[in-house]
Amino acid sequence: MYTFDQIARMAAEAVEELQLPAEPALLYDPIRYTLEGGGKRIRPILTLSSCALFSEAVQKSLPAALAIEVFHNFTLLHDDLMDNSSLRRGRETVHVRWNNDVAILSGDAMLVYAYELAAQSDPDKIPQLLAILNRIFVGVCQGQQYDMDFEQVDTVTADQYLHMIGLKTAVLMAGAMQAGAWLGGADEALAEQVYEAGMHLGMAFQLQDDWLDTFGDTQTLGKNTGDDIASNKKTFLLIKARELASPAQREELDGLMRSTDLSREEKTERVKALYVSSGAKALTERLIDDYFNDFSRLLDKIRIDEPRKQPLREVARKLIGREK
Amino acid sequence: MYTFDQIARMAAEAVEELQLPAEPALLYDPIRYTLEGGGKRIRPILTLSSCALFSEAVQKSLPAALAIEVFHNFTLLHDDLMDNSSLRRGRETVHVRWNNDVAILSGDAMLVYAYELAAQSDPDKIPQLLAILNRIFVGVCQGQQYDMDFEQVDTVTADQYLHMIGLKTAVLMAGAMQAGAWLGGADEALAEQVYEAGMHLGMAFQLQDDWLDTFGDTQTLGKNTGDDIASNKKTFLLIKARELASPAQREELDGLMRSTDLSREEKTERVKALYVSSGAKALTERLIDDYFNDFSRLLDKIRIDEPRKQPLREVARKLIGREK
Repeated sequence: MYTFDQIARMAAEAVEELQLPAEPALLYDPIRYTLEGGGKRIRPILTLSSCALFSEAVQKSLPAALAIEVFHNFTLLHDDLMDNSSLRRGRETVHVRWNNDVAILSGDAMLVYAYELAAQSDPDKIPQLLAILNRIFVGVCQGQQYDMDFEQVDTVTADQYLHMIGLKTAVLMAGAMQAGAWLGGADEALAEQVYEAGMHLGMAFQLQDDWLDTFGDTQTLGKNTGDDIASNKKTFLLIKARELASPAQREELDGLMRSTDLSREEKTERVKALYVSSGAKALTERLIDDYFNDFSRLLDKIRIDEPRKQPLREVARKLIGREK
Repeated sequence: MYTFDQIARMAAEAVEELQLPAEPALLYDPIRYTLEGGGKRIRPILTLSSCALFSEAVQKSLPAALAIEVFHNFTLLHDDLMDNSSLRRGRETVHVRWNNDVAILSGDAMLVYAYELAAQSDPDKIPQLLAILNRIFVGVCQGQQYDMDFEQVDTVTADQYLHMIGLKTAVLMAGAMQAGAWLGGADEALAEQVYEAGMHLGMAFQLQDDWLDTFGDTQTLGKNTGDDIASNKKTFLLIKARELASPAQREELDGLMRSTDLSREEKTERVKALYVSSGAKALTERLIDDYFNDFSRLLDKIRIDEPRKQPLREVARKLIGREK
């Protein structure tokens, strides 16, 4: 039986030990740089923890766990280029440190590298593993496109927003868990149940992440908050606030979004107050709880000894910051 | 037994019949647009013809053939963005018709789509097929990086150039053939022999393609020639001309490359004359012949009834424009 700490260490060390070719340097240096950038290795931990549900030999899910972590980092690399972000985890992004062409091509090579890692899995498991990875990788691309589409339109509905984060974030976490379950010996139906549980965890995680960008504490998070409000990003909080607001509140909110003369701090504080007074904050918190509770119930229903579920429950609690 | 024409039609129709999701439109429209752009479908024809070496049921290699064609078109899409090319096959490139972000993300989705197509193959064959595809996809990324690296350096040796085109072009054609052979029922060793033959065909093809850019006829080719000379691209012809030239010839050649006051036509004619007088043209033609003859001999050595080899021999002849 594994503890969460053992699994977290295994994931972190495996990423560190990845061996890439030296040449061509402009192809592989940016990949090494991106993977060295840190991150909590959430997705490989989810894969290993889900493998641990069904097997004592979690190492057999390590290549797939690494594939998913490499894929995730590939999406960050290309997203940073498309969003024109200059910093990631306190370091220059690849297109800033090198250039756009290097970011495009090393990203492409990184996506192929994810499939190379997956190909190191047990051959008998590869056909279904490939289907799992393809589903999540396609989903993430679609989600990223919807996310960019939403910047260009006036209104986004709550359903559209939830569909987008489902694709962009939840599918990847769910697929990470499904791959682990499959490689641990679950049959297709059982692995699909794990995927469903993972979708709920992923939704809770992304809504929580948005919530933290607005209501989280910069010190605790170790990163800046308030970017979503500053950029008028159509998050669930904003969509719901506009939906629930009284006419007067909505006019104030729209005025704040149009304003150009307010300081970042003042705009943030006033929008946050409207998120509270409109009820959007409480509704978002309830939705996060619902998704998290559904995840827990779906995990309860999987017929496996409870101790085997402990690492996965612990990852989930840490992710969402819940103790139940 | 299949004829070349049957196989060529099967490849063309299968590409036309590909079904992609409608939404998100900015993700999938550029992929449809790219695949509708034409091209000779050389790589899927190579896959089907190599499957036909070993099997009557060439359809079973169709998903992999399509995967390789989609991958090839993905590389064109991202390469056009990196090279800042505005036209491809007489139409605007994706980043011009849409924008850079669309080109990046739809290209990424196209690469994943290639793997989705491959995943439709016989499950028993998928683990090795995945290894074949990964090898060629990594090779192409490496080749593209070397190609870009070579623009930034003063000199490139003939060996470096041949290594680069081996990765950027030959590996993809060779892998297309290896995948076909494997799916047709060849064992790993035999499929590797087909790959080796394909490497020689691919080298002949790329050297011929370079030769045609300099000595080919615009009318016959249906595309402009002379771009390589105009841009001082370090092709095999240029590398060898500088190597074989007398001091006086070399001085003239370097002067032509530095010149800014010559018309494109005049520069082209004078460089071409130096390619002839230095012996670089004849040497390149000999090398193309050598690669093509080695391909033919490697194909001879594969113990299969000669009629089964006819489609592959015919593709090769058409590609290289040889009748032997």
